[in-house]
Amino acid sequence: MSDRLPQGYRAAGVYSGVKRSSDKLDLSLIVSDRPAVAAGVFTQNLVVGAPVNLCRERTPSDSIQAVVINSGVANACTGAQGEQDALSMAAKVAEVCDYVDQQVLVMSTGVIGELLPMDKINPGIEAAAKRLSGDEAALVDAARGMMTTDSCHKVCTREVNLDRSVWVTGIAKGAAMIGPNMATMLSVVMTDAAISMADAQSGLKDAVDESFNCISVDGHMSTSDTVLLLANGAADGEILTGKDLSKFQATLVEVCEYLAQSIPADGEGATHLVTIEVHGCRTREEAVKIARTVADSPLVKTAVAGNDPNWGRIVSAAGYAGISFDPAKVSLLVNGTLLYEQGTPVAFDAAAASASMKANRDTNIVLLFEQGEASARFWTTDLTAEYVRLNADYHT
Amino acid sequence: MSDRLPQGYRAAGVYSGVKRSSDKLDLSLIVSDRPAVAAGVFTQNLVVGAPVNLCRERTPSDSIQAVVINSGVANACTGAQGEQDALSMAAKVAEVCDYVDQQVLVMSTGVIGELLPMDKINPGIEAAAKRLSGDEAALVDAARGMMTTDSCHKVCTREVNLDRSVWVTGIAKGAAMIGPNMATMLSVVMTDAAISMADAQSGLKDAVDESFNCISVDGHMSTSDTVLLLANGAADGEILTGKDLSKFQATLVEVCEYLAQSIPADGEGATHLVTIEVHGCRTREEAVKIARTVADSPLVKTAVAGNDPNWGRIVSAAGYAGISFDPAKVSLLVNGTLLYEQGTPVAFDAAAASASMKANRDTNIVLLFEQGEASARFWTTDLTAEYVRLNADYHT
Repeated sequence: MSDRLPQGYRAAGVYSGVKRSSDKLDLSLIVSDRPAVAAGVFTQNLVVGAPVNLCRERTPSDSIQAVVINSGVANACTGAQGEQDALSMAAKVAEVCDYVDQQVLVMSTGVIGELLPMDKINPGIEAAAKRLSGDEAALVDAARGMMTTDSCHKVCTREVNLDRSVWVTGIAKGAAMIGPNMATMLSVVMTDAAISMADAQSGLKDAVDESFNCISVDGHMSTSDTVLLLANGAADGEILTGKDLSKFQATLVEVCEYLAQSIPADGEGATHLVTIEVHGCRTREEAVKIARTVADSPLVKTAVAGNDPNWGRIVSAAGYAGISFDPAKVSLLVNGTLLYEQGTPVAFDAAAASASMKANRDTNIVLLFEQGEASARFWTTDLTAEYVRLNADYHT
Repeated sequence: MSDRLPQGYRAAGVYSGVKRSSDKLDLSLIVSDRPAVAAGVFTQNLVVGAPVNLCRERTPSDSIQAVVINSGVANACTGAQGEQDALSMAAKVAEVCDYVDQQVLVMSTGVIGELLPMDKINPGIEAAAKRLSGDEAALVDAARGMMTTDSCHKVCTREVNLDRSVWVTGIAKGAAMIGPNMATMLSVVMTDAAISMADAQSGLKDAVDESFNCISVDGHMSTSDTVLLLANGAADGEILTGKDLSKFQATLVEVCEYLAQSIPADGEGATHLVTIEVHGCRTREEAVKIARTVADSPLVKTAVAGNDPNWGRIVSAAGYAGISFDPAKVSLLVNGTLLYEQGTPVAFDAAAASASMKANRDTNIVLLFEQGEASARFWTTDLTAEYVRLNADYHT
């Protein structure tokens, strides 16, 4: 399916000069031709970038018209001047596009502790406003303008199955953090459906919990992680309720999941995308906690890098997740091969299991408990020497 | 100070044939010539080795006479046969040394999911019993017999400052986990002081909380982690109380801290031992949680490997530790250089700070909060490409 903007949106991505290399884009602008409902979900880090503070204040809203995003400098740990610069970015967009300041949201990603070069950002905003377009190339440019260490841009478009044409399109950038300081995970999801402010906020929160909150590259939470949802109602429907709202929510989750797993899939130095499924838990929270603990274990991640079906590392990581379970009722499959059943290692063809891991970029880990009906899915990368090189030797 | 066994202890370490290479030792025996008070602290993992179950049942005790330790096979995830083998190891020691089974404790470390080769273990126990000696060489052999991927043995001897000669001596082995499955952290601390069972158990618990529970190599909790304390009273004193007990406890903490930090100091592929001090927290628990979160961040660990004084990664890791604090009241020093003060990056000579990290194997990170008087110290390693190579490519 080709990607497209929902109705009533235009986008642009330009090179403003924040990044050193002019063959990259570093400033993106997304506008809705009519005021949109907007919701936001943000990093839980106590140390946050100035744009996070701005977006927290301005969402949820029913009158957002633009999101401006720069990459290269995160505008985090920059004090009062940083807060002022975030406000200035929004004000510049409002001035150029004829909105009110409060109708503009801001995202920044890149190095922390440095001030934004506003002498480059402001002309960049003017240039982006001139290039705004509703076509697919403009959408891709906007996705490229938010990239930092991503090797490819990340876009997802889905149609909601209603009696009228309703679209959900999201763009995202990756989470792996690299130097000299850090990057971040950002995403903007747009829809031409009409959604109430309350449904937008709770629906985005739920979708993020099942997607962006179920990925981990290195377990290091950024100062700037932000996911925004814009709903402008340009599909000309009434505010969604009941079954239509449920259908919209399912599509929103689908788009968020696609974008979320594309982030570890593009993880720094990664040779495997690892999907961890946990089934049979008492609650979803417990299943997520076990999956996250397995995903964050450097020993599990290095074993996957080495194509080793190392059940001991996986089962023992589950064992220290802080969730009570009966070790005698745990089973484990890797790439469909049963390695551990009811608390006991199973005889299996280790060479074949390893060959299967080596032949596939995707590694599938399934942990089965017998405590209830709750499940979770979590995505991470393997841990390679190349990851360490990228994150240790970036100065040389 | 040269190392020595406390009075009334003998030790031995032999090659029994569990490990492939006969120039290593793989079976250690420690005996007390009189029944000793014994306390134990164990892994919190739900998936545990059979020897952990045995030691949990038999401690605290006032009549332990021996600890037998094998390396090479962890006897974990080995079902009923594994439980039987752990009992057999203790029974064999009891038979050879003329003790009662219940007076013997067992530790195993190495590969998990494999049964112990009892046809090698039993003759090994007999050989070790014949070599038991109270001299320093025997102590070192016992420390070597528990090693797995450690590059050096770990021993610490301290005298307690009392009116009579009282000694505390500990041996330990490293925590980094390597293949094909996993290793573990083990330690035995011996004293010739007389301690009550209750004081031994609570004193060991407190000492472990300040030492072995404040280290992390890869954040992966083993199935077999065990620390034992033996107190045989051979120094001919009465049971310690009051000020004498406090002096003993301080020495016990000192020995445990020395052994604990020697484990990350010998971490796989490590080029730096990282000490993280957190000061000014409301409680010690909060300080430990912040220190542990910084210690477990792969981004902090790779930055240290690259000799980068990357304040952003350290401060942002503190920010997601789950402890509330005012980001505007955080300061940070690395190797004595102030990098971040009251929530704002400080101008500093980055080249000099990096050169200091490169020139020293020890990296000292100090985080200052302004919320109270509580502190914590935590030790970890950096994360190098060599660590990944050791833990990913061990089959090749």
